[in-house]
Amino acid sequence: MGKVVTLGEIMLRLSTQSGNRLVQSDSLQAHYGGGEANVAISLANYGHEVVFASKVPNTALGEAVRKHLWRYHVDTHYLLTGGKRLGTYYLETGIGERAASVIYDRAGSSFAEMKVLEWDLATLFDDVDIFHISGITPALSKPWQTMTLELMKQAKKAGCKVSFDCNYRSKLWSLKEAGQLFTQILPYVDYCSAGKLDAVNLLGISVDSDEELAFYYEKMQEHFPNIQLFYSTKRTVRSASANQLIGTLWYNHQYYESAIHEINPIVDRVGAGDAFAGGILHGVLEQMTPRATVDFATAAAALKHTVYGDCNQFSKEEVADFLICGSGKIIR
Amino acid sequence: MGKVVTLGEIMLRLSTQSGNRLVQSDSLQAHYGGGEANVAISLANYGHEVVFASKVPNTALGEAVRKHLWRYHVDTHYLLTGGKRLGTYYLETGIGERAASVIYDRAGSSFAEMKVLEWDLATLFDDVDIFHISGITPALSKPWQTMTLELMKQAKKAGCKVSFDCNYRSKLWSLKEAGQLFTQILPYVDYCSAGKLDAVNLLGISVDSDEELAFYYEKMQEHFPNIQLFYSTKRTVRSASANQLIGTLWYNHQYYESAIHEINPIVDRVGAGDAFAGGILHGVLEQMTPRATVDFATAAAALKHTVYGDCNQFSKEEVADFLICGSGKIIR
Amino acid sequence: MGKVVTLGEIMLRLSTQSGNRLVQSDSLQAHYGGGEANVAISLANYGHEVVFASKVPNTALGEAVRKHLWRYHVDTHYLLTGGKRLGTYYLETGIGERAASVIYDRAGSSFAEMKVLEWDLATLFDDVDIFHISGITPALSKPWQTMTLELMKQAKKAGCKVSFDCNYRSKLWSLKEAGQLFTQILPYVDYCSAGKLDAVNLLGISVDSDEELAFYYEKMQEHFPNIQLFYSTKRTVRSASANQLIGTLWYNHQYYESAIHEINPIVDRVGAGDAFAGGILHGVLEQMTPRATVDFATAAAALKHTVYGDCNQFSKEEVADFLICGSGKIIR
Amino acid sequence: MGKVVTLGEIMLRLSTQSGNRLVQSDSLQAHYGGGEANVAISLANYGHEVVFASKVPNTALGEAVRKHLWRYHVDTHYLLTGGKRLGTYYLETGIGERAASVIYDRAGSSFAEMKVLEWDLATLFDDVDIFHISGITPALSKPWQTMTLELMKQAKKAGCKVSFDCNYRSKLWSLKEAGQLFTQILPYVDYCSAGKLDAVNLLGISVDSDEELAFYYEKMQEHFPNIQLFYSTKRTVRSASANQLIGTLWYNHQYYESAIHEINPIVDRVGAGDAFAGGILHGVLEQMTPRATVDFATAAAALKHTVYGDCNQFSKEEVADFLICGSGKIIR
Amino acid sequence: MGKVVTLGEIMLRLSTQSGNRLVQSDSLQAHYGGGEANVAISLANYGHEVVFASKVPNTALGEAVRKHLWRYHVDTHYLLTGGKRLGTYYLETGIGERAASVIYDRAGSSFAEMKVLEWDLATLFDDVDIFHISGITPALSKPWQTMTLELMKQAKKAGCKVSFDCNYRSKLWSLKEAGQLFTQILPYVDYCSAGKLDAVNLLGISVDSDEELAFYYEKMQEHFPNIQLFYSTKRTVRSASANQLIGTLWYNHQYYESAIHEINPIVDRVGAGDAFAGGILHGVLEQMTPRATVDFATAAAALKHTVYGDCNQFSKEEVADFLICGSGKIIR
Amino acid sequence: MGKVVTLGEIMLRLSTQSGNRLVQSDSLQAHYGGGEANVAISLANYGHEVVFASKVPNTALGEAVRKHLWRYHVDTHYLLTGGKRLGTYYLETGIGERAASVIYDRAGSSFAEMKVLEWDLATLFDDVDIFHISGITPALSKPWQTMTLELMKQAKKAGCKVSFDCNYRSKLWSLKEAGQLFTQILPYVDYCSAGKLDAVNLLGISVDSDEELAFYYEKMQEHFPNIQLFYSTKRTVRSASANQLIGTLWYNHQYYESAIHEINPIVDRVGAGDAFAGGILHGVLEQMTPRATVDFATAAAALKHTVYGDCNQFSKEEVADFLICGSGKIIR
Repeated sequence: MGKVVTLGEIMLRLSTQSGNRLVQSDSLQAHYGGGEANVAISLANYGHEVVFASKVPNTALGEAVRKHLWRYHVDTHYLLTGGKRLGTYYLETGIGERAASVIYDRAGSSFAEMKVLEWDLATLFDDVDIFHISGITPALSKPWQTMTLELMKQAKKAGCKVSFDCNYRSKLWSLKEAGQLFTQILPYVDYCSAGKLDAVNLLGISVDSDEELAFYYEKMQEHFPNIQLFYSTKRTVRSASANQLIGTLWYNHQYYESAIHEINPIVDRVGAGDAFAGGILHGVLEQMTPRATVDFATAAAALKHTVYGDCNQFSKEEVADFLICGSGKIIR
Repeated sequence: MGKVVTLGEIMLRLSTQSGNRLVQSDSLQAHYGGGEANVAISLANYGHEVVFASKVPNTALGEAVRKHLWRYHVDTHYLLTGGKRLGTYYLETGIGERAASVIYDRAGSSFAEMKVLEWDLATLFDDVDIFHISGITPALSKPWQTMTLELMKQAKKAGCKVSFDCNYRSKLWSLKEAGQLFTQILPYVDYCSAGKLDAVNLLGISVDSDEELAFYYEKMQEHFPNIQLFYSTKRTVRSASANQLIGTLWYNHQYYESAIHEINPIVDRVGAGDAFAGGILHGVLEQMTPRATVDFATAAAALKHTVYGDCNQFSKEEVADFLICGSGKIIR
Repeated sequence: MGKVVTLGEIMLRLSTQSGNRLVQSDSLQAHYGGGEANVAISLANYGHEVVFASKVPNTALGEAVRKHLWRYHVDTHYLLTGGKRLGTYYLETGIGERAASVIYDRAGSSFAEMKVLEWDLATLFDDVDIFHISGITPALSKPWQTMTLELMKQAKKAGCKVSFDCNYRSKLWSLKEAGQLFTQILPYVDYCSAGKLDAVNLLGISVDSDEELAFYYEKMQEHFPNIQLFYSTKRTVRSASANQLIGTLWYNHQYYESAIHEINPIVDRVGAGDAFAGGILHGVLEQMTPRATVDFATAAAALKHTVYGDCNQFSKEEVADFLICGSGKIIR
Repeated sequence: MGKVVTLGEIMLRLSTQSGNRLVQSDSLQAHYGGGEANVAISLANYGHEVVFASKVPNTALGEAVRKHLWRYHVDTHYLLTGGKRLGTYYLETGIGERAASVIYDRAGSSFAEMKVLEWDLATLFDDVDIFHISGITPALSKPWQTMTLELMKQAKKAGCKVSFDCNYRSKLWSLKEAGQLFTQILPYVDYCSAGKLDAVNLLGISVDSDEELAFYYEKMQEHFPNIQLFYSTKRTVRSASANQLIGTLWYNHQYYESAIHEINPIVDRVGAGDAFAGGILHGVLEQMTPRATVDFATAAAALKHTVYGDCNQFSKEEVADFLICGSGKIIR
Repeated sequence: MGKVVTLGEIMLRLSTQSGNRLVQSDSLQAHYGGGEANVAISLANYGHEVVFASKVPNTALGEAVRKHLWRYHVDTHYLLTGGKRLGTYYLETGIGERAASVIYDRAGSSFAEMKVLEWDLATLFDDVDIFHISGITPALSKPWQTMTLELMKQAKKAGCKVSFDCNYRSKLWSLKEAGQLFTQILPYVDYCSAGKLDAVNLLGISVDSDEELAFYYEKMQEHFPNIQLFYSTKRTVRSASANQLIGTLWYNHQYYESAIHEINPIVDRVGAGDAFAGGILHGVLEQMTPRATVDFATAAAALKHTVYGDCNQFSKEEVADFLICGSGKIIR
Repeated sequence: MGKVVTLGEIMLRLSTQSGNRLVQSDSLQAHYGGGEANVAISLANYGHEVVFASKVPNTALGEAVRKHLWRYHVDTHYLLTGGKRLGTYYLETGIGERAASVIYDRAGSSFAEMKVLEWDLATLFDDVDIFHISGITPALSKPWQTMTLELMKQAKKAGCKVSFDCNYRSKLWSLKEAGQLFTQILPYVDYCSAGKLDAVNLLGISVDSDEELAFYYEKMQEHFPNIQLFYSTKRTVRSASANQLIGTLWYNHQYYESAIHEINPIVDRVGAGDAFAGGILHGVLEQMTPRATVDFATAAAALKHTVYGDCNQFSKEEVADFLICGSGKIIR
């Protein structure tokens, strides 16, 4: 078992019940989640020692975040309290042909407003195997661009491997701004979740329409030879209720694809990418083969679609069983 | 933007939650709707000025109808109060192979019991572009047959276009009775929703098994050259949860079909035809091309299947966006 | 109309709402059911006079069982009260790729702990046409093996036909133990639900990989010439939400298969086999043809998948209508 | 144990959840009940053999009524099917200072529209100890006035005791009309639920402001010496959530009052009077003392206030235990 | 009937279900409300022509606000769209000894961030009888202090009466800041909701411990002889579930008190003060006597406690009926 | 802050929603709790380091227990997995005059079936300040009597203070058996929750009808001079919805009583005694005065009544605030 630190924003998600639009909704489901928090929970579920570092307001909502993390045995000693508010977003759940729709209300959050790294960096990375962070964090503010870079440097100095999920969000910053920062931080990264669009738009790799994902992984590694592992999911959206999902992994100049998962119906797809990332990092920590890793991670991502909430609700034994008999037969 | 009057009965629908039969149900969902009311709401959503004329009892149920219409900005100055009861129906929601099942309890309603036109007809059609009514209204009683004809005449006199949705219901009257009335009123109609069965059964057009819907539209126009526009949906019922939907339009001797919508799962199909009619009338009012009109209307009908309740919950911008990207991808 | 006695355990089922795992669930749905009780309810729904014999604790849970049976007009004069507890099981509902999962908590129940036949056997089988019991009952304990045999003998003596559903459960006893008992009791059986696995594993019929179910039915009858009827369903599990279902029947050296049912989505598949058995016994009691019987029974089983709870909620008229128009179209 | 027939209308009640007005309500709770049906269920709960005679439509709603009665082991052999609709009413639940509010939608029901006694009167009262009916039944129509009288005569002829609950409803008929009928039918009545207002308004007993209920009971018996027993509850409405309840009984020129029950909060007061009547008739059937009878009946009525739905959910043992320890302490 | 404009912020309220703390809550109830919006809805319920002026974001949440107002027939022509977010607050519902608890998350809202009066002031007050605004609006920002004053001046210029509810909130600004502004704006006010604390803390009236509310009303009028009417409620909090409520009114040197309302249980007390203000302004518009006005307003406030949501759900007829028979008896 | 170990059984509670009997309930609320687990959660909420030792089955229900404890930051390193089932009980929630009712289904649980102390006793009490256990544990079995004594001895040897809550349950063992064991174990106890009935029935102190609780505390200490602290609540049950609660403490020959709490309505009283015990032990650990301790503990117990579930949901700051302003006023 390994020790992992993830760091990022965690938000309150308020979502509608399937079949109702937001304007029709008298009640909203409350979930707490965020990319790095979701990865933390996945890894804690698999038995690793996981710290989630963030900042939440000193209110019942901040307390709810803490209890949410505790529930999955994530260490919250680096969960700071203070600042003005918890970032929030509204999710109108999609169904069939109608897509889900999101309204962000995250500006001014306790985490986004941070100007300096308030954690004790001297201890944060002690004995830590992997530090995981996503591209959403530097997108939050100029200071967060600087702080993200600083965190990566400190993590490397402490001997951690650095895991980074590009996760580009056009609502938060421009391609140009993101590309510039990514170029600065990717030299510190060991494991990287990125797709074709990231390669082309952010890292300036030229499009070759004949080429598949493996080609872009190869090109990205040429640019950043320090990165040992690339991974991402390929999702074919048939409708809001039915998606096809394939996991991909690139390691040691080799490209791997998982079995194909036809997911139908989808209960809740938020956090599926994080469940995939969590599965990949678990494979790394457990020194599983690349093939076993991508299969495990994709199974975890597929299972995530079958439960409400942002976070993976499955143990490593359950994911493994699902890989063997994932048929939908009753388990008695 | 145009001005529209629709007139008809609005009922309380009491429906089960999916997966429960009516006899198992301890609670029922309450919705208010009716063909003409649903068309009114669609058009109000698209920004038109819409009046819904009807009659409801002077009880909390009548008040609930009024507030339902207000919620969508439908004008209720011609919503009369009085009479004995609100028409009601019970809907046992279908799922998969099991069809939905309806119990009507509409006899004796305030609207159905009307004997004279209690609205101020001198003002009702002032500056109105379209008057919309359906074949359910004359099916309610003998007086309503006379009153429907009278309304159409008054509307025409006031310079309105008349829109009519055949909507034959065998539980309310015979084919013969309906056919006789339709023959009397169709000469006043400008826009008509009718299908193959209406043509054959009600208007006495002889079946030609080799022919498609376009043929019948053509034939119907030969009979009623005053009708500028025919429209209806073609629905293929795969199961109670999965339908295929195609919208059709006949205009100026030309037949148009929308793209095919595979609707799966269906949240609630009640009111989808009204959403289609609302979309067609919106195209007419906005002078959209026939192709744009049928695409818009079919998109509106498809979206209706994804929300609970009888009425369309989408603005014209949302329908238009769905036409472009209706893939089921998350809209962030 | 016939008179039927079924006898077995009835349990409390506590199930999650779809999309939630058991550990996430703050509330659980409560249903009461068991193989023989479910068959009893099906047959009572079809108008037969049905007695369900069992034993439940003298608590509100036992009372809830009684009222559940009463609700469907099942006679409870042979429902004993006493003993320590009601058998319970927890069902984590599956969805899509994720299978349902069951936790049994049935040991020590009032029924399982019975050591002697506490019912008045002199009257239990009076004027009874069919006595139905399943292979779960003798699996509960050594005394229940003896008592099952005794019940069958008494039933035969009273002139009843005996119906037996093999229903082998590996969690309760070994193949060997079950096979030994089945060999003893099958000579008393008239109607038998059994599949290929039962034939091979329990009755020692050697596998012939080229052969289909009809072959095994033939072989089983060679061993037990007293059995007039074999039946079972063939289920293809596409996912926890989509199954294909075919009913089979073997009678008078003839093999029958129902039409194919594609069930999607599945609301609740628990009790579908019992609904099938109920339909078969109804066909027998009503002297329907084998083809009509297997079609009716499969339709009943398919409908069962569309409602929550263990028991069939449909009258014989509703099943018959479904056979004719089971298209998923609205029934107005 | 005795045998009882009750006869009357049973309706669907659609009620709001506490704290919501009807116009705000997206879902309504469905319960089935009626005065005579509620009395039937109480007596069946206490172990008596009870028949409920009525008429319901041949729809799922009629079937729901039947299953509701079956659930409590009420015999439905005299529950006819036919006619047009099930009587319905809407209940906006009150709370605190805000009173509950009722909208009746019962006109034209299968029962109210009956013109002749469609039951087999030759068998209906066979071996029956008590026939119970209320003043709501003759209030439904002129034919029902005649039929009520006829039923009472037939019951008396068959040797039944007749129980009558005045239950005057000003929305259904005038005081004068009711008074005239009551004068005709009371000579056939053995047990009568009536209060001061009934005595004064319906039976023409002159008001004496110094006198209490006992005085009026005495006077009523002077008019109708055939009546052995008068009973009713005295309810002090503190608010919609808090009522004081006292049961009264007059027997053999003696007046009895139960202990005082302070009921707070009230879950659902509909049917409390019927629970009281059920308790009184149970005392009569079991030949309990007048004091024991009124205490039992009042306890039953008090308990009814603590559960949702029209009908008493308690066995005679539970009512008896409540009389002893009705303190609100946990029963472990 | 009069014409009224109210102007202020409207927020999304997310509240827990009674008996659950915020940290325990998986779902939250969504309501929309704000002091001035709630007053607008009350007056629209009573039949007045009411405009609510505000600003909401151009999202589904802004649309939900608009539909909420439409539902009660409030005119939204002056409801602007734009800005960044909808102000939000979280309400942990109290019960018994445990108080409700509020977390505000309103900073940065579309309304609070306004810097200039974006409405067309030339038309806003046309033919308007009363302009109503509260002390929360100037508390939002420095610009809002200036804009509040400006609005009052414009309203007076247009011939409106100005209604002002002090509503001091210590979380938003200091007593000193509020006192200074109030001194500037009260000379423009005709009807003023203020209590003893407002008099002492904001307007510098010295405390006289022997004196009651009437004394302070008198003193306030000495300072601001332009104010014709003072009003407020006196609330005695027995617990979060039980309050005593008395309405007070000061007019023409006369002090009036309503009957005492004991409110138990409380469903939702948010908006009760606004319901009171709405009742007072209705009395003014209808030229009711001061006594009738304070009784009506207090009854409206008491009724508000019995329904979920911020807004009064009662018509003037319902409030009037409640004044007569507000006993909690069933209204049939 | 201190370190505490509590040890005992934790069960699944399945409870009805208020106003529904168990037989009416289609869904049940699931909560996890037990005396010692509840005390553990209270103390963890107050910031202490708390270990809960127990044994649960290796199923999703055992996992749910673990996540429940994690949610409140209780250490589960000594929560063993194994055995056959999780103890369960059914709670029919009481309301008003109707008492709650409990059905236990706890026999054969993983914890109750333990025969030896499977925890590592060498480490369990390391650096632990208080070991807390209740009288339910030795009531489970003969082996548990021996093991309870052994645990206390080991705890004392390790330097822990021992806290014991008598909690006599007549369903589990006789007074005689309990009395004998209590006499053996009380010499090891430092803090003891016991009431008058415990003193008289279990410890053989003779009744003196003139004497109050303080007298019995004094007498008990004479018998067990090692016990430093006695405590318990005095509860007056007005109804299932309204109780009066007073906390009592005896320390250093001095008797203390808290302020009186009138609790109305009661949301959920299960676990209130444990919340009281948790408050007392917090006072001990924090060296609060006896008066402050009993006030804090009683406030915690009162607050527990206002939330669903067995466990206290309040931090020490929230309890302290409630002591100051516990009025039911909104906290903004």
